[in-house]
Amino acid sequence: VQQKREMSEVQAVIESVIGFSVAGVACGLKKDNRLDFALVVSDRPCITAGVFTRNEVKAAPVLVDMDRLQYQAENIRAVAINTGSANACTGRKGVQDAHVTASWVAESIGCHEENVLVMSTGVIGLHLPMDKIRQGVSLASASLGNDWQGTASAIMTTDTRPKYGSVTVRTAAGQEYTIAGIAKGSGMIAPDMATMLSVIVTDAVLSGAAQAKTALKTAIDKTFNCIAVDGDTSTNDTVVMMANGATGVTAGDEFQLALETLCRKLAQDIVRDGEGATKFIALEIAGAPNHEAARQIADTIATSPLVKTAFYGGDANWGRIIAAAGRAGILLDPEKMQLHIAPGETLNGDSLLLFTNGMPTEYDEPTALDIMRQPAISVKLDCGAGEGHALVWTCDLSHDYVSINGHYRT
Amino acid sequence: VQQKREMSEVQAVIESVIGFSVAGVACGLKKDNRLDFALVVSDRPCITAGVFTRNEVKAAPVLVDMDRLQYQAENIRAVAINTGSANACTGRKGVQDAHVTASWVAESIGCHEENVLVMSTGVIGLHLPMDKIRQGVSLASASLGNDWQGTASAIMTTDTRPKYGSVTVRTAAGQEYTIAGIAKGSGMIAPDMATMLSVIVTDAVLSGAAQAKTALKTAIDKTFNCIAVDGDTSTNDTVVMMANGATGVTAGDEFQLALETLCRKLAQDIVRDGEGATKFIALEIAGAPNHEAARQIADTIATSPLVKTAFYGGDANWGRIIAAAGRAGILLDPEKMQLHIAPGETLNGDSLLLFTNGMPTEYDEPTALDIMRQPAISVKLDCGAGEGHALVWTCDLSHDYVSINGHYRT
Repeated sequence: VQQKREMSEVQAVIESVIGFSVAGVACGLKKDNRLDFALVVSDRPCITAGVFTRNEVKAAPVLVDMDRLQYQAENIRAVAINTGSANACTGRKGVQDAHVTASWVAESIGCHEENVLVMSTGVIGLHLPMDKIRQGVSLASASLGNDWQGTASAIMTTDTRPKYGSVTVRTAAGQEYTIAGIAKGSGMIAPDMATMLSVIVTDAVLSGAAQAKTALKTAIDKTFNCIAVDGDTSTNDTVVMMANGATGVTAGDEFQLALETLCRKLAQDIVRDGEGATKFIALEIAGAPNHEAARQIADTIATSPLVKTAFYGGDANWGRIIAAAGRAGILLDPEKMQLHIAPGETLNGDSLLLFTNGMPTEYDEPTALDIMRQPAISVKLDCGAGEGHALVWTCDLSHDYVSINGHYRT
Repeated sequence: VQQKREMSEVQAVIESVIGFSVAGVACGLKKDNRLDFALVVSDRPCITAGVFTRNEVKAAPVLVDMDRLQYQAENIRAVAINTGSANACTGRKGVQDAHVTASWVAESIGCHEENVLVMSTGVIGLHLPMDKIRQGVSLASASLGNDWQGTASAIMTTDTRPKYGSVTVRTAAGQEYTIAGIAKGSGMIAPDMATMLSVIVTDAVLSGAAQAKTALKTAIDKTFNCIAVDGDTSTNDTVVMMANGATGVTAGDEFQLALETLCRKLAQDIVRDGEGATKFIALEIAGAPNHEAARQIADTIATSPLVKTAFYGGDANWGRIIAAAGRAGILLDPEKMQLHIAPGETLNGDSLLLFTNGMPTEYDEPTALDIMRQPAISVKLDCGAGEGHALVWTCDLSHDYVSINGHYRT
């Protein structure tokens, strides 16, 4: 365990993942010549899994990728990602445009169109500006290399910083492989996926598409699906994992832990960079009737505007947390609830009990305010109603969130 | 029908309701000597119905009133309402304080303690300052009269204006009675009740508690339960209707329509005065699989931070509305959806089609922006999936909402 833990530490850099090359370029999708188009390419076919938005309104690239992974999941070579337009609500032409984008990438790297995935993020209802996309494909494929940070920057929308990381795993036999990932997402972030794109790559050997899918889904349930910025779920959410096996090292038991560690880092980076966020909040629900109930209570609290504005104001307004739990649709007895807060991203011994036996404790208000003013705050609500447990990460609701989203399109 | 409609017009004044007297006084619960305590008294027992919050965390006055209406529903004489403290999460002492408040009112007007209801609104977790409450009861019972506006003002918290109105109903036989009401609520407003208090009184004769309850519940389902400010539901929501029969005129078929008209006016007043609200939005969902699905879609849109900030920004960002509908948990086909917007509080012929066949129309952007910049906007989403229909009223999410709620307690 000690060794695994050590190996699973996420690095805030991506040195290299054998057989993968990437590029982030500027092709005029964003203003001011910012990076706005990205390409991730493997030199050989990848075993690939994807997890997609549950929104009933799915963007064209989501529909195209879902379809492709039905029959090409062990044969994917590249992912192309554009910003500026979500290519959602764009009808038949939107699907066509996604196909054309993929075909340009395929042509430039030498594979079939069906072996390329596409992702889009940006405004809903705009057709892709295909002349710029063509330019993006051409620039990116000409500059493929190892600039992961630039590539992560090229998929940003309202993000203020690129999100990427890697884990190098040493197997029991002393062999090494890497898992690396880039992600974007800042608003429209809700449990059950979000306006969130992520590409995860590994040079480990996976046994096949089934293993890849199980590994990715399990990891996402504990990480990307446990974050909430505003409770809105987008039309475009996609996480794709590509394994090219270039190291020849088989992914063993340690793979899952390493993958989850990486996904957790990327997911938390999204919350930290939430639109207008000034605070990172780790919210733990214990003692719920069951896991689903715990998640429902956690999600209700994490998306409550009153709770989120109280965190923004640095106000220890525990009543709003208790009230949000009470409206989650789960049978609860306030007399049995206990609410703790603590500074930092994880709750340890030094927490402050705010509420028990249906009433506030006689806690020290300055201590509570001091905790509420930290950049990271842990909250634990024990419902005293069973064994259900959930952990989600969220952020506060600030003036800047309103500014960003009140004027995003105009 | 013509006559009924005429009779059901809501007046923005309350002239008098026979047998009822009211008072709003200042007893130090709010700063700056503002009105903060209210009393509504009938000179004879009332047939009374109440509808209460569904939050699992119920304030002491809610628990006390629910209990009282089990066995005193045809024998209520008064309602006392304090601001400053919600008397929620206040344990056994909170319930005791509610009883003591009722007993002081009972003493001053000459009835049993059990014949008095109590309501509270304000911060959760604070005990009632009983010396001030005593002062409030004493001042209010000494100044009972016809100042309905002052009484409505005395129950305000973050409200910026008092909410009240009345309907005078003429029966087929030419007799008259009045229904009047006061309400408060501005934040923590969600479908299925909200931090919302309302007292409705009538001098009509009702047959009994069962009729009162059915009438009130039916009216609330179409009015108070169709508003959303922030999606948060409070611990204290209460609507009480008291009928004292003082006119001797029996409430006939026309009663329900008049009651609903009054409740709609009060509910819409709450949305218009939503915390930080700059726009009133009437949201109609048609063509959903059924009514519950329509409500779920409506509520998801009405509480979506991205939709609400787009309205605040005056941006015709229809994509956010479609995306919110898509994540409502209802099976929908975006190809069959149609989205219209129009200026004003009701959607009539002059609406602008923004979205159909899975794509935006080639609508005129200046026309759309002009509509989005109106103080009242109607939105209609036809899902093309059935006969389900719902109508809710909501408001935008502004910088002021964040300011108000980021710093409410401190």
